[in-house]
This record gives sequence, structure tokens and C-alpha cells, in this order.
Amino acid sequence: MQILLETSARHLHVTREVLDILFGEGYELTHKKDLSQPGQFACEERVTVVGPKKSIEKVSILGPARAATQVEVSLTDARTLGVTAPVRESGDVAGSGPCKLIGPCGEVEISEGVIAAKRHIHFTPEDAKEFGVEDKQIVSVKIESDGRSLTFGDVVVRVSEKFSLAMHIDTDESNAACAVNGTMGELIK
Amino acid sequence: MQILLETSARHLHVTREVLDILFGEGYELTHKKDLSQPGQFACEERVTVVGPKKSIEKVSILGPARAATQVEVSLTDARTLGVTAPVRESGDVAGSGPCKLIGPCGEVEISEGVIAAKRHIHFTPEDAKEFGVEDKQIVSVKIESDGRSLTFGDVVVRVSEKFSLAMHIDTDESNAACAVNGTMGELIK
Repeated sequence: MQILLETSARHLHVTREVLDILFGEGYELTHKKDLSQPGQFACEERVTVVGPKKSIEKVSILGPARAATQVEVSLTDARTLGVTAPVRESGDVAGSGPCKLIGPCGEVEISEGVIAAKRHIHFTPEDAKEFGVEDKQIVSVKIESDGRSLTFGDVVVRVSEKFSLAMHIDTDESNAACAVNGTMGELIK
Repeated sequence: MQILLETSARHLHVTREVLDILFGEGYELTHKKDLSQPGQFACEERVTVVGPKKSIEKVSILGPARAATQVEVSLTDARTLGVTAPVRESGDVAGSGPCKLIGPCGEVEISEGVIAAKRHIHFTPEDAKEFGVEDKQIVSVKIESDGRSLTFGDVVVRVSEKFSLAMHIDTDESNAACAVNGTMGELIK
């Protein structure tokens, strides 16, 4: 059974408070395009992520604002920044990497929030039933590509009515598999 | 059967002619440290690799000089540079990506030579016999790691008396597997 692969480039989620600091009190994010997960969208707004070693400019914000600020980078990016980014599920930021964020109106130091996203698949309850998987289950996904076929282990199943079926990997993982737009993966339980 | 994984960071191999241009006529590379493959060594010398989009500074030269100049980057680097780097075996540079190289004494445009290395294992003939593999055979290698276990397919077997047993992957691949110093892989035929 095949699942569409989506590559997440580096991005960040911000709290209302951080948005106020970076872009000004009461600022509203500008919707650029919808993402595959319902309600989630890429924004026009960009910020600079500063690590002890280097900075990365023009990092996209994904909306809407969230309860915790979270900077999702590849491990290649983490090394560039000079930050230790643990491999974590979204939202699990306790004790993760620190950084500074710079926006057009201000800057803020965050003591944690920099993570490398743990690879995962978004299922609706209906899709999960069809694939025979449960929330939090760990599965594998086999990718056939031109010269870099591989099988990802440690793929987390996430099930919610708010989701749409898609597997999310970061740019390092995408490159390791030579994945391109439209690449599908085969679920292996 | 287990094989040591080695991560190759971006680097380049240069011809005698390119070395003359970048560092001056008759310049000799400075040995910094031996690599796992006999006779191969990391050098003190660094160059800037320039692509149409961005440059990457301080890229290491690996010695000794070779018959063809070859710039080995990750696909993350290739995107940063704005160059299309095909996944190729070392030495197979025909029609690969172009770039400009800048050294302390000069610069040179190369029309091809930028590749992403195809993952591979170096075997001595004795090791190949023990593992039951042959030169050019395609195998898989399973990596167990904390949170990013995976199985690399499309791994090329290379056998030579000049080699020492080790599997080589690039930084994207290493990050996709959360490989660290000393990580071993299990050969799967």
C-alpha cells in the first residue's frame, strides 16, 4: 500500500507572543499556500535563525500560531547553526536546542524548540483502518528511487481526524532517498 | 556481518593542472591526516566552490592529485550551490555538474565534476570473499540507530587490493540514519 512522500524544508512554528516580538504587536501571518494537512499553511513571513556557529536566513513560518515555538531543521542545518537538534516528534520540545530568532521588528532568544522532526505518517482514522495501523505504531516505509532506494525504519504513525494521508520526511532524508515530487513509499509493518 | 560506516563530508579531488592554477605552479598538497583507504589523505588546503546560486567556502581537498577533478557534495549542498549533482560512482564525472573553484592563487571553471557520491562499500578481495560479494554487486545495508534506523539499498560493492573495509555515505545519508562515529551496518544480500 502506497503513501505519498512529502519533504519538509526547514521551517518554524511560532507562538502569538513570539510573533508579536518578531513582527510587531498584533501582527497577522500572511497566508501563502495551504499545506497537505488541513488548516496548516505556509506564510510569506521569514525570519533569521541564529546559532552559535552560523545563521540561516529566510526561514519560513508555518501557520497558524501554536502553543509552543518550534524550529524544525535538518541535521545538516543543525550542524551549520552549531546547535544540537534532537530527533523529536512535533510538540515534544522540552530540552531541545536553543537559538535566536530575528524578525523585522525584533529578536528573541528561545531556550528550547530546535528539533529535527521524527519521520512520521499522517493518517485519518479511515486511512489507518484501511492500512491496518494504530496511532503511535512504529512502521517502515520502502522507497524505490533511481540510485538511492532505501527503507526508512522508525516511522511514527499518527492518526487524527484533522490529518490527511501523507508521510513527512526532512530534506536530509529526502536526499538520502533521492525522493522527488510525487515519490511514493510502501508501508511495511 | 557488520561493516563500519564512514561519513564523507563535502570534499574535492583535483588534477595536477587545477592544483597549479588554484595554489601556484608546482604546489604540493599538505598532508593533514590519513583516510581509511590506503594512500588517500585529507589536506590542509581548502577552496571555495562557487555555484550559480551560492558559494561554499573552505571545502577540503583530498589527496593525492587525480586524473580528473571531482567535487563531491551532498544533495543538500548541491541545492545550496544551485547545481544539479547526479548520484555517481567516483570517477564517473562525464556530464555531471559544473562549478567554479577559487583558491588563493587563482580560479578555474570546471564544466563537469560535481557529483553526489553513490553509496558504496570498499572491500579487499579477502573481505569480499568472506562476505560472499563481488565487485559491482548491489547490496543493502541495515543501520540500527536511536530513532532513525533504516536500510540503505543501492549500495555498490567495490573490491580492490588497494582498499580497506568500510562503507562510505554522504552527510545527508548519515543524518537520515542518525549515524555517529563508530556506527556499524549489517550487510544484506
